Amino acid sequence: MSIYEIITKKKQGKELTSEEINYLVNGYTQGEIPDYQFSAFLMAVYFQGMSFQETTDFTKAIMYSGKVFDLSEISKPKIDKHSTGGVGDKVSLVLAPLVADCGIVVPMCSGRGLGHTGGTLDKLESIPHFRTNLTAKEFIQQLKKIGCALIGQTEELAPADKKIYALRDVTATVDSIPLIAASIMSKKLAEGIDGLVLDVKTGLGAFMRKLTDAKKLAKIMCEIGKRMKKKVTAIITDMNQPLGNTVGNALEVIESIETLKGKGPKDLLQVTMILAEEMLVISGMKRSRARKMLKQSIKSGSALKKFREVIKAQAGDERVIDDYTILPQPQYEYQIRSPSSGYIHKVDALTTGLLAVELGCGRKTLTDQIDYSAGIIFYKKVGDKVNKDEVLAKIVGQNQNKVKSVAEQILSAYQITKTQYRKPSSLIKFYYRDI
Amino acid sequence: MSIYEIITKKKQGKELTSEEINYLVNGYTQGEIPDYQFSAFLMAVYFQGMSFQETTDFTKAIMYSGKVFDLSEISKPKIDKHSTGGVGDKVSLVLAPLVADCGIVVPMCSGRGLGHTGGTLDKLESIPHFRTNLTAKEFIQQLKKIGCALIGQTEELAPADKKIYALRDVTATVDSIPLIAASIMSKKLAEGIDGLVLDVKTGLGAFMRKLTDAKKLAKIMCEIGKRMKKKVTAIITDMNQPLGNTVGNALEVIESIETLKGKGPKDLLQVTMILAEEMLVISGMKRSRARKMLKQSIKSGSALKKFREVIKAQAGDERVIDDYTILPQPQYEYQIRSPSSGYIHKVDALTTGLLAVELGCGRKTLTDQIDYSAGIIFYKKVGDKVNKDEVLAKIVGQNQNKVKSVAEQILSAYQITKTQYRKPSSLIKFYYRDI
Repeated sequence: MSIYEIITKKKQGKELTSEEINYLVNGYTQGEIPDYQFSAFLMAVYFQGMSFQETTDFTKAIMYSGKVFDLSEISKPKIDKHSTGGVGDKVSLVLAPLVADCGIVVPMCSGRGLGHTGGTLDKLESIPHFRTNLTAKEFIQQLKKIGCALIGQTEELAPADKKIYALRDVTATVDSIPLIAASIMSKKLAEGIDGLVLDVKTGLGAFMRKLTDAKKLAKIMCEIGKRMKKKVTAIITDMNQPLGNTVGNALEVIESIETLKGKGPKDLLQVTMILAEEMLVISGMKRSRARKMLKQSIKSGSALKKFREVIKAQAGDERVIDDYTILPQPQYEYQIRSPSSGYIHKVDALTTGLLAVELGCGRKTLTDQIDYSAGIIFYKKVGDKVNKDEVLAKIVGQNQNKVKSVAEQILSAYQITKTQYRKPSSLIKFYYRDI
Repeated sequence: MSIYEIITKKKQGKELTSEEINYLVNGYTQGEIPDYQFSAFLMAVYFQGMSFQETTDFTKAIMYSGKVFDLSEISKPKIDKHSTGGVGDKVSLVLAPLVADCGIVVPMCSGRGLGHTGGTLDKLESIPHFRTNLTAKEFIQQLKKIGCALIGQTEELAPADKKIYALRDVTATVDSIPLIAASIMSKKLAEGIDGLVLDVKTGLGAFMRKLTDAKKLAKIMCEIGKRMKKKVTAIITDMNQPLGNTVGNALEVIESIETLKGKGPKDLLQVTMILAEEMLVISGMKRSRARKMLKQSIKSGSALKKFREVIKAQAGDERVIDDYTILPQPQYEYQIRSPSSGYIHKVDALTTGLLAVELGCGRKTLTDQIDYSAGIIFYKKVGDKVNKDEVLAKIVGQNQNKVKSVAEQILSAYQITKTQYRKPSSLIKFYYRDI
């Protein structure tokens, strides 16, 4: 077996064996296969794709390049959720405590903002003192104790993915569906979970802009799960406009808490509920019972209570639940008014996501400082009626120049028409279950 | 401009600009673009190809990465020939003095054996003391004085090609037609020539096994020539069986001299003559006159005299022309007899080429020593009638074990049938001229 032969085989569109894929991933991780051969392989994969079995083997090889959590001492079902990334996507903050409150263990390893999308870790870290870097021991302890923990990906988890992703990032091989699927699944399955619900975003602000690509990615991830004897369901949801009414770290924490208080925006609640429901169903619960239980958990305030527990357990200031002024506060704000009367046709998630990064909500380079207080509040979303000069949005933050600059650009994300426009659903009804 | 954008553009099948290609080749040659990005680019080229203009720009960028010979002080037409490589292909040894004798200056930079194919330099170096490493000054002096010089590629010529080829060689990106074309043309055009005749081999023992690929390569190389204002003609010739009746360095020198003496095998003479004729035609000579002149040059012995001059000028022992025992002599020989009566249907050039390398005619690694005396003599070729136990071939060399081992394997290259088989032409009548 040689890397040259493996590249050639993939180049010719032939299927690689498990042995070849293990040789490849292990060789690269251990530094025996040089970057320049691995990047040629990645580009060949971009063009020739990988079969379900190859992608599964690739996922396994990456997963076993590091530690795989052993959560077998926890008897409850261990189910996680993963989103392919979006703008205003604060679902994890609502969903994790909600599902944990319904008896599921949620061992959630999340990421930081990537490109124009936000990251769960950045959002959580806007809560003073919140620790996302729990040790493996602390993580498992917390799961046992309160059924839910929200942490960052540790160095030990799927190190091959880190190395491969860094290479893909500089060789224009990020946008390969099997490579994306393997990257996601290797990290998630290393958490030691029994099942996984995938939120595959599609639309202007999603990495999978086209629905056909989102479907392909959803299908291949479910197929990997099946072949690795895990219960995996994927739901495709809309990312043409931001999810919920806010973008920005502290703002999204507030919106998440409001949602747990039963006062969240409809689209965010809808996406959260469908994902949560799937998690309960995967664990073996009847769908009707799952729905009832989830509604009750919010209504009774016990999901909110669970979130308070999580914050406290992770050293965050849990008073934030009752007092939002504990969060970083913006010093400047600009209101954006509608230039005309009509119906909102578009609030471009990509444009608003990029503007949010410019505002300081995310990082352009690894060393950039985040302005946790910064963000955008949307008063009108797609399908809403708006009058001329009515407030469309508000831009807030601690850097006056940035706030002003973004305020001046934000209208480019909007399309307002005279003709009535139907409010879209956040859910694209396309599920993969147990295929 | 960034390498990432360039890779992405090529990956998407878009055409790169001259500026982008210059940035890419210069950046890589100067070490600013790392191997792993360049190899991803190469693999994208493998899949997406390059347009004629891109390939021309790529060729130019590689050519100008080093020295370009200025032969403007030589007023005679300067025309070279290049073969894509074959087994038993000693055409250059016959053709260079022959064409020079007809008034053309032939500044020929050749290569060593590659894979199963032989190299002109290795053949020449079987002549005692023959120097293929002339300095640029010596090279030009000799061209002025006797109109012909046969040297190796200098370090100064197209250094980018060397670096790129080394990377292609380990990333399975050798077999890309535009990359092959650019590699050949950049080196040849750096010789400062006015015109070039290409011998594109096709068949079992050629790098372009399929005629359609040979045609593509021929066409793109002619197109590069045209766009760089050079006269380039390509002829596709057969490489299903070895060219001539010998494979092996000293053996091929003898066969070349015999051909210059008018006693060469028909196929070798035919290929040499058609290429030589094209070289004269390119220089502006009428085809009928060119043919007459070439025949006369051999008949009169003046082409042979020119080869003697070349050997002498390059410090070789020119007595070899009259005394073949000056060449390295084999100590062992094995005769191979036909296992049946019939007609030769196949003498596989790839198999015989690989066996020749095993015998010591070529190098498997850079440090291998060549046995210049070793080789294979073919007494029967495709289309010939053979009787059972008649001698088919002879294996010679200085290493008894190797001679014996190759002798035991050589029949695998043959196919002998009861049905009569037509003698094939060495020429595949497919020319590109001034397209």
